[in-house]
Amino acid sequence: MDRLPGFRDFYPEPLPHSDVWSADARQYIFDKWRAVARRYGFREYDGPPLEPLELYTLKSGDEIVGQLYNFTDKGQREIALRPEMTPTLARMVAAHERNYKKPIKWFAIPQLFRYERHQKGRLREHFQFNADIIGENDLAADAELIALLIDTLRSFGLTSKDFVIRLSSRNAWQDFFNQRCPDTARAYEFYQIIDKLEREQPTASSEKLAKLGFSLDEINSFINAGTPTPELESILQNLAARGLKDFVKVDYHVIRGLAYYTGVVFEAFDQQGEFRAIAGGGRYDNLIKLISGGKVDLPALGFGFGDVVLLELLRARDLLPKFDAAIDVFVLIEDETLRPPSLKLIHDLRDAGCAVDYSLTPAKPDKQFKRAQEIKAAHTAKLERNPSGELTVKIRNLQTRAEQTVTPAQAVLQFSRK
Amino acid sequence: MDRLPGFRDFYPEPLPHSDVWSADARQYIFDKWRAVARRYGFREYDGPPLEPLELYTLKSGDEIVGQLYNFTDKGQREIALRPEMTPTLARMVAAHERNYKKPIKWFAIPQLFRYERHQKGRLREHFQFNADIIGENDLAADAELIALLIDTLRSFGLTSKDFVIRLSSRNAWQDFFNQRCPDTARAYEFYQIIDKLEREQPTASSEKLAKLGFSLDEINSFINAGTPTPELESILQNLAARGLKDFVKVDYHVIRGLAYYTGVVFEAFDQQGEFRAIAGGGRYDNLIKLISGGKVDLPALGFGFGDVVLLELLRARDLLPKFDAAIDVFVLIEDETLRPPSLKLIHDLRDAGCAVDYSLTPAKPDKQFKRAQEIKAAHTAKLERNPSGELTVKIRNLQTRAEQTVTPAQAVLQFSRK
Repeated sequence: MDRLPGFRDFYPEPLPHSDVWSADARQYIFDKWRAVARRYGFREYDGPPLEPLELYTLKSGDEIVGQLYNFTDKGQREIALRPEMTPTLARMVAAHERNYKKPIKWFAIPQLFRYERHQKGRLREHFQFNADIIGENDLAADAELIALLIDTLRSFGLTSKDFVIRLSSRNAWQDFFNQRCPDTARAYEFYQIIDKLEREQPTASSEKLAKLGFSLDEINSFINAGTPTPELESILQNLAARGLKDFVKVDYHVIRGLAYYTGVVFEAFDQQGEFRAIAGGGRYDNLIKLISGGKVDLPALGFGFGDVVLLELLRARDLLPKFDAAIDVFVLIEDETLRPPSLKLIHDLRDAGCAVDYSLTPAKPDKQFKRAQEIKAAHTAKLERNPSGELTVKIRNLQTRAEQTVTPAQAVLQFSRK
Repeated sequence: MDRLPGFRDFYPEPLPHSDVWSADARQYIFDKWRAVARRYGFREYDGPPLEPLELYTLKSGDEIVGQLYNFTDKGQREIALRPEMTPTLARMVAAHERNYKKPIKWFAIPQLFRYERHQKGRLREHFQFNADIIGENDLAADAELIALLIDTLRSFGLTSKDFVIRLSSRNAWQDFFNQRCPDTARAYEFYQIIDKLEREQPTASSEKLAKLGFSLDEINSFINAGTPTPELESILQNLAARGLKDFVKVDYHVIRGLAYYTGVVFEAFDQQGEFRAIAGGGRYDNLIKLISGGKVDLPALGFGFGDVVLLELLRARDLLPKFDAAIDVFVLIEDETLRPPSLKLIHDLRDAGCAVDYSLTPAKPDKQFKRAQEIKAAHTAKLERNPSGELTVKIRNLQTRAEQTVTPAQAVLQFSRK
């Protein structure tokens, strides 16, 4: 029996097959995301992977349903597997914001889902690092969030040679639109054209723009000028003060597809332009009010940063560690009469925080030693009885081959991780 | 808009409401589960939260569907949100077992789902620590797995006064049944009666047993005798060698409800009998063969250990830490001309692995200090310019109130976590 198309199995490394994913790499990424978020003072939250369908149609209209992994449950409820985290966050904040001092700085690592026609290799789920700041209008919050994104990317060993944050502004595009087109109801249609500019044929974009009364030339000259608005200038200065100037540039190509962005928007891209966007986000000052039915009105901003493009990039730049069981000590049991005290040693070592493995059943010494090497154990430890009848432990460092003989208590002390 | 009934929102502590759950406590539990599993040499894996419905009906028959969170997807596939991890594990192992040396020791922390008629407070999802050993017939594997369960419980500060592992055997009950009843097809019906013995009225159990030709008295005297079978004796000795004798007792009340168990079974209970079972598991030597359609035949055993009863128990025993943002340094910015170098200090501290927060916008000194105290920051740090124009950092330990003045570089060094 196979898994469902578009879903992933995560196996321990080394991977048995090119078609499966690494549970170790996934955890490595989650650990980094979590560690950097905490350094920035962000707190973790999570919601259900399932939400009422309405939570998404409210925000994006019914046309979103075509891309959602939605279904009718046994109680005839219309359900969606969450396609993004922001509506859940807005729902949660709206329910209990009074209990948290502003600005709220929260992060989550949800699994997200979509249901598009299945194409080979196209996934229907991914994991995404979400970080949001809620209740702060000041651009200092935008800079703080972008700094978090930069430092998260840096924590994987990526440098300004590997990635750049393209900084842009919905406001700038809104002003641009409003100055030239009186029909404000068509602004979102305009944003969609800008969003696709780099992916579509210029003639196609040109035609669409003409219908709104714009020429591709005036669009391109606005983008090419790339003049920072005062808000973008403020963010650039804030990031420069932190020493992060090299990681960011103004690029008005970026506008973000989703309807709800209201201010500064940004995307992280690899510098070689090989991959899709690594991460993206921006301000969405009206969404919490919308989701809460007008009860709570708080400015907000956030980004989403998925695991799939990141993994591709880290693999391409050779920045993923090799993972193994990280066994500190493999206990050899060559004399079966010493199995009970060996079990005690194993237990005491584990109790001291040390990762220990051993052969569950009697096995030839060379087979046990081979196994210790295969799983890349750092040391072997073997209980022996010395001529005076006392138990000793022979420890061997499998890298340096250095050997020492100590008492069981000394061995436990030596490997203690507590 | 509300979340779906039976699902949980996880908020940062302190919790805003009794109706929501702690994301911090959840992560605390996940970290312990993961840490102890790794000390035992178990590797992490995961599968999709959605599987083909057939994966579960194959194993448990169509009657299982009543309890599953199942639905029909947009491609007319019959889908279930995973109710347990074992079928996914069996599927994954069957697909790629040749690439892994036996015994395979794997763990996962999946979210699991069920759809029963909704009752107040009744959850439709929970998280579960799953650990399994595959490819080992020897009872040493059963002992290793039970030791892992004990040590995981111990890692939360629980002692033998708090919990006990009730050890039993499907084999013992099978022998008991076969010796007295010729109709082996009804064995599972018999197991179900034993499974409910402690929860049902004796008269109800007695009636059901009578239909199979058993008396409640003979059942009770078998349970009360509690004579360990040789296999249970072997496990008890193995655990005793590790020093874990006090954490386990033979108790034939335990038989486990699921059909697929084949050997030793066990459950962890709180000693005061206040809660449902904390964890449970056993051998299921035939399941991988069944799931793989006969292609792969490997003995296996495992346990599941949920987050909900554990949380109730830890709360009742006052063993849950208080969680906060764990901020090492709150940087005070009292002179706004020093905001740019303060941003640099903040960035350098974070880069050194230190958790840092600060006021994103200008605020009165006492308000900033109050905020540092509210979030329980360990220290404040304030940049100042000394008479000769150099920047210094005044660090204050908020517990001891000790103050010191150092250079920015010294401050970063002092808080470095790398």
